[in-house]
Amino acid sequence: MTETEFGYECSPWELRWRGLDVDALQRTESAFALSNGHLGLRGTLEEAEPRGLPGTYLNGFYEQHELPYAEGGYGYPEEGQTVVNVTDGKILRLLVEDEPLDMRYGTALEHDRVLDFRSGTLRRTTEWASPTGRRVRVKTERLVSFTQRAIAAIRYEVEPLDEDLQLVVQSDLLANEPIESDTRDPRVAAALDTPLVAQFNRAADYQAVLVHQTRNSGLRMAAAMDHKIEVDDGIRTRVHSEDDLARLTVAVDVPKGGRLRITKFLAYGWSAQRSVPALRAQVEAALAGARQTGWKGLINEQRQYLDDFWATSDIEIDGDPELQQAVRFALFHLLQAGARGETRAIAGKGLTGPGYDGHAFWDTETFVLPVLTYTTPDAARDALGWRHSTMDKAKERAKQLGLRGAAFPWRSINGAECSAYWPAGTAAFHVSADIADAVLRYVNATEDEEFERGCGAELLVGTARLWASLGHHDRHGHFRIDGVTGPDEYSAVADNNVYTNLMARRNLLAAAQVCEKYPDVVQQFEVDIAELDSWRAAADAMFLPYNQELGVHPQSEGFLEHDEWDYKGTDPSFYPLLLNYPYFDLYRKQVVKQADLVLALHLCGDSFSPEEKARDFAYYEARTVRDSSLSAGTQSVIAAEVGHLDLAYDYLAEAALTDLHDVHNNVRNGLHMASLAGAWQGTVAGFGGLRDHGGQLSFAPRLPRQLGGITFRLAFRGTRFQVAIRPGEATYTILSGDPLELVHHGERFTVGADPVTLPIADVDPGEPPVQPYGRAPQRRDASRLRSFVAPEA
Amino acid sequence: MTETEFGYECSPWELRWRGLDVDALQRTESAFALSNGHLGLRGTLEEAEPRGLPGTYLNGFYEQHELPYAEGGYGYPEEGQTVVNVTDGKILRLLVEDEPLDMRYGTALEHDRVLDFRSGTLRRTTEWASPTGRRVRVKTERLVSFTQRAIAAIRYEVEPLDEDLQLVVQSDLLANEPIESDTRDPRVAAALDTPLVAQFNRAADYQAVLVHQTRNSGLRMAAAMDHKIEVDDGIRTRVHSEDDLARLTVAVDVPKGGRLRITKFLAYGWSAQRSVPALRAQVEAALAGARQTGWKGLINEQRQYLDDFWATSDIEIDGDPELQQAVRFALFHLLQAGARGETRAIAGKGLTGPGYDGHAFWDTETFVLPVLTYTTPDAARDALGWRHSTMDKAKERAKQLGLRGAAFPWRSINGAECSAYWPAGTAAFHVSADIADAVLRYVNATEDEEFERGCGAELLVGTARLWASLGHHDRHGHFRIDGVTGPDEYSAVADNNVYTNLMARRNLLAAAQVCEKYPDVVQQFEVDIAELDSWRAAADAMFLPYNQELGVHPQSEGFLEHDEWDYKGTDPSFYPLLLNYPYFDLYRKQVVKQADLVLALHLCGDSFSPEEKARDFAYYEARTVRDSSLSAGTQSVIAAEVGHLDLAYDYLAEAALTDLHDVHNNVRNGLHMASLAGAWQGTVAGFGGLRDHGGQLSFAPRLPRQLGGITFRLAFRGTRFQVAIRPGEATYTILSGDPLELVHHGERFTVGADPVTLPIADVDPGEPPVQPYGRAPQRRDASRLRSFVAPEA
Repeated sequence: MTETEFGYECSPWELRWRGLDVDALQRTESAFALSNGHLGLRGTLEEAEPRGLPGTYLNGFYEQHELPYAEGGYGYPEEGQTVVNVTDGKILRLLVEDEPLDMRYGTALEHDRVLDFRSGTLRRTTEWASPTGRRVRVKTERLVSFTQRAIAAIRYEVEPLDEDLQLVVQSDLLANEPIESDTRDPRVAAALDTPLVAQFNRAADYQAVLVHQTRNSGLRMAAAMDHKIEVDDGIRTRVHSEDDLARLTVAVDVPKGGRLRITKFLAYGWSAQRSVPALRAQVEAALAGARQTGWKGLINEQRQYLDDFWATSDIEIDGDPELQQAVRFALFHLLQAGARGETRAIAGKGLTGPGYDGHAFWDTETFVLPVLTYTTPDAARDALGWRHSTMDKAKERAKQLGLRGAAFPWRSINGAECSAYWPAGTAAFHVSADIADAVLRYVNATEDEEFERGCGAELLVGTARLWASLGHHDRHGHFRIDGVTGPDEYSAVADNNVYTNLMARRNLLAAAQVCEKYPDVVQQFEVDIAELDSWRAAADAMFLPYNQELGVHPQSEGFLEHDEWDYKGTDPSFYPLLLNYPYFDLYRKQVVKQADLVLALHLCGDSFSPEEKARDFAYYEARTVRDSSLSAGTQSVIAAEVGHLDLAYDYLAEAALTDLHDVHNNVRNGLHMASLAGAWQGTVAGFGGLRDHGGQLSFAPRLPRQLGGITFRLAFRGTRFQVAIRPGEATYTILSGDPLELVHHGERFTVGADPVTLPIADVDPGEPPVQPYGRAPQRRDASRLRSFVAPEA
Repeated sequence: MTETEFGYECSPWELRWRGLDVDALQRTESAFALSNGHLGLRGTLEEAEPRGLPGTYLNGFYEQHELPYAEGGYGYPEEGQTVVNVTDGKILRLLVEDEPLDMRYGTALEHDRVLDFRSGTLRRTTEWASPTGRRVRVKTERLVSFTQRAIAAIRYEVEPLDEDLQLVVQSDLLANEPIESDTRDPRVAAALDTPLVAQFNRAADYQAVLVHQTRNSGLRMAAAMDHKIEVDDGIRTRVHSEDDLARLTVAVDVPKGGRLRITKFLAYGWSAQRSVPALRAQVEAALAGARQTGWKGLINEQRQYLDDFWATSDIEIDGDPELQQAVRFALFHLLQAGARGETRAIAGKGLTGPGYDGHAFWDTETFVLPVLTYTTPDAARDALGWRHSTMDKAKERAKQLGLRGAAFPWRSINGAECSAYWPAGTAAFHVSADIADAVLRYVNATEDEEFERGCGAELLVGTARLWASLGHHDRHGHFRIDGVTGPDEYSAVADNNVYTNLMARRNLLAAAQVCEKYPDVVQQFEVDIAELDSWRAAADAMFLPYNQELGVHPQSEGFLEHDEWDYKGTDPSFYPLLLNYPYFDLYRKQVVKQADLVLALHLCGDSFSPEEKARDFAYYEARTVRDSSLSAGTQSVIAAEVGHLDLAYDYLAEAALTDLHDVHNNVRNGLHMASLAGAWQGTVAGFGGLRDHGGQLSFAPRLPRQLGGITFRLAFRGTRFQVAIRPGEATYTILSGDPLELVHHGERFTVGADPVTLPIADVDPGEPPVQPYGRAPQRRDASRLRSFVAPEA
């Protein structure tokens, strides 16, 4: 049994952890979480204990609670939202001759769990000897179905290994599971302590259903289970239900060599409007469908869905097995977060944990949606559909803030602002431009005219109106956007954030263009010529501060005059700085939490010359501490673009391994979707050089010396194609669909039926930039490149 | 009975309100509050009801409570402090033949209350007919002694008017009086609902004492009462005590023409350390002293104390009786706030109400202490002594914020920061320079070398160290202070606030000077030559932004580039703006809540040319909305300096009448000490032109055309003198003490035994500046200048 230093075994298509490490349970539960974007199950053990942090989540299902303020202010949101741990249907408890299977007692002779990226299932094998020496083997496999979004299923098998044994299995639906909350605020804790009010329960035969409603937000949910039991001998079963529990108890004597197999089918549903009978009917119907499909059928559908996904989306990395695994892990979880969200948000943690209260942020549009746009465009469309469905709340918020158009929230589950920190919750307007940018990208990548004309146009017009009312022309004619918070959270409420201004400019022009293209849009949203002109005038006059003396762009006006942070005098244990320094001090110094100007170099690269990019990147490298998981991916992209390939490689590895290495020590609360997306960004936009400025797909492939090759696959306007980077060259191959016009290192070319191979010139970028003292990324050297461990037979 | 439109009668030496207006009780209780800076009693009626907001306060006595944060941050204070309504000893309830005297029932045939600025007492006369027609006259007079700081006393007289009557008087000490709290936060409300835990009670003869301790802050207080009863006939009395109540009950039959007179002596004390017996002994001793002095004695001491005060401090205004009254009301309340504070803070509301939780702010040093410095310098010294006593907490706070030296709190009772709003609580550093400035002013005005060498030097060195560590020299050598919040609360966390930078410069130079003057200071605080040099270098290189194009100073860097506020589009009911617009929007626009750059023009006037002052004043006049009571006084001062005398007069009236006219509709929570100080500032620094730059006292008297004269009195370095402004001239007269060298309109002169009369030249400042739409001060025209109402015989 070979274990890596981080516990996970290295393997190209799966993630395996051998042995039981109770202290690691919380983070492995996040990594082993299964989800389809609608329903998420954390990777807790079937027997429920030992456990880290149990979690079953329904996308969009939250409890509401008052936000407390010692000193309130106008526009502070009064209500917060927190994702609810709903009825837990994962539980199958086992009694072996009166002894409950609990791996903290007795002996775990063998134990491993494996998340399979191709089957889309979590498998477990445990060989356990009870304290009295009775040995059983438990094998389980579970899935959350990509094809039947309400459905999860668990196959549970127990074999006595040495003798005939009496086995009792209790299969539960358990609501209001007690969990520890780490919030200091008693009101939030109170809201989350038994948030579900029982409304209906019923059990009969092998089935049961529980219906609950949240206490404050008034959302209703139902969970139902059904079972198929396979065993040689006769069984005795009992089913019952009460307010917060439904249980099927199966008691059976299983002979040595025999086996008890239970297949548990779970269905979940929620609604803000549907009645108890309607919701009950909905989950029972879903369950009937799943029973009809059967376990094998679900397994087959799951694999087929994933085969299709990997055919479009896979990334192959030659020469770094750990990175290979991490990138596939990332893609798998991104798919899980977005596949079946269907007009619900993609939260910062997906459905893998309760971190950030289950809120969605700008991360989704800026980091996650590019991945989905070029791999699973329907999921990108659905996520933007969520934003569109919250237009009313965004318009209301803009009005409340004294602005026109739509102001999208900094953090939210239902579309209403939940940030109690006003420099984010009222000033980080870039989220609205990020949404517009995601609309543009999706429309360019799919030519989805129906979306463009409908949701897309409304999102573009609403956000353009926001910018037009937020900025002003100063006495010199410049269009300034003052007092906003950009991506970097170590600055706030500053004037003319370059990233924000560039993104706002794009937003304004895109809105003008969509209005020109569709006269009915103009009419529908009552855009007149004067308004169109004002958008173009604002875009044309957009103020972009630049410092001639230093030859770099300030992140925001005034930034370059600020004092430097004393990195050498900062104790390494004082990172992340926000836990050890006050906001005012972080905000007034040249210290950057996460890519901000450097993110502009990526997303608005067409607004900078190559020389500016090199200088800006070097300048901000020296001041970026990466206290955020949103940063490494972007730094990887720009390091690759300006030619610092070793550095790009280091950053790519950091982004890709953020969760598997638990870099930020908080994976217990869920995976970092944006960082997982950074693994794709670093590979495809970094070493692949993918850009889509103005809708033109272009590449600038480069291979770091440590790798033998990188191959990635994309979908663009119905065409699936592949880019294979090898030393000195890149090959473009259409996998299906029409020929494409692409750009390779600035040269336009067309790839059709035949692959096109083009050379890659060497680049000498000079000395690599330096990072703040102690904050350079870990050097990814040869000693860390492990071979794959042969997967278990 | 003549009443002004605001209910108060106009009279030169008193404030009278006739008739009962239950709705006005809350604000009259503030105006009629008695205090000596140690003990404060709001002006509630003796019979306790009807009442507005009862309040008995002991300076420095607070309850502690957790500050809640929906999203916390490093350096946010965890505990808040709130002034406690302590044991109420003002209560004397009356039963007239079984009918409780409650002015909401029966008939108030006559009722008036008068605060007498010369006797320092609150008198009341009520003629009341009970619902059954029994008529009594009640006369009361109360004082909080300036000479015996623990003592208050009430003389209470009842006369039957038509027939013999049985009277019962209950004289109470009542703890944990129920009051309505308007806080939304249940934790704060809980902390203030019965904050006092009973520890001791005893009653015997005519005396009683109660000792309590606060639940969380652990402060202990004692209140004791004794009585003298004068009546013709025999009385029956009963005294008893319980946890939260002590009561002397006096029952007596009083014949028509007879009178029951009770004199109630109250003593209060509190301590964080003294035991129950010690504290009990302390108040009983104070009571014995007061009994020994007797009512007449207390009354005489009080008048003598006030005679002395008015001899040094009075301001006479010829031609505007209402303003005359308001200015004396202001001086009286400023004295009450500061007279006997003795190393406790002077709170923003003094001891007149629970507003701002009873916290002290920078207002004290900047607005209140100049008045006390030139009228009651011992009180100014004591208030600075409070700051000095909190040095440890200020040093700790600086350290927590990553700074050196001492960072004084934005708001506090005990010296620890209580602001839950970080842009104030961590960034409004100017408070430390304001304290240093107050030290300088006091030392210059008194030549109090003992203070200078002790508290003064330590305060100057501690605050200089703060500035040295807070700012930095940029690549051009300028010393910048970035990311701080200046006086104007409609801007925050901006770079190089001109006011802050100028005050910091003064602070740095003053610290260097005191170190030069006293070698032992250098040694005591371990200041070396390098540090001294660094202070001087920072002061010399202090960055002061200036806009050549506009010819004005930005309030902070970038301010002049910001968008203008849409004043015309702002509904008048939307002021104060902070209740109707989000911070981010206020902060990024050219809208000013209160004098900031204009305050710099006043306090650092030696750093601006007359032309700059005129241009800056006009520029900021057009953008200052005066949503703060801290503004009008300063605007009056600069309007007078630049020659806009009508405008100065309007602002002076606004400042002086803020509380009497309830301009900000919140007098119920207490008087605005800074605004009361603004009445003095507008008169003495405005029309008198008093400045003390560099310790040189200078005047630039000017008389507005509406007045016949202004005379004010000051104390400076032991000399008491008077400045009388008349049309075309001013006369300087020494009242006692040595000759003084003064400056009159830029000309140095000496005044000795003989008064000196000097001419005042006319000034033509051109057109007066305009204010934001709808925000000009009320024009003080002739129709508002009422004659005095003849005081009641």
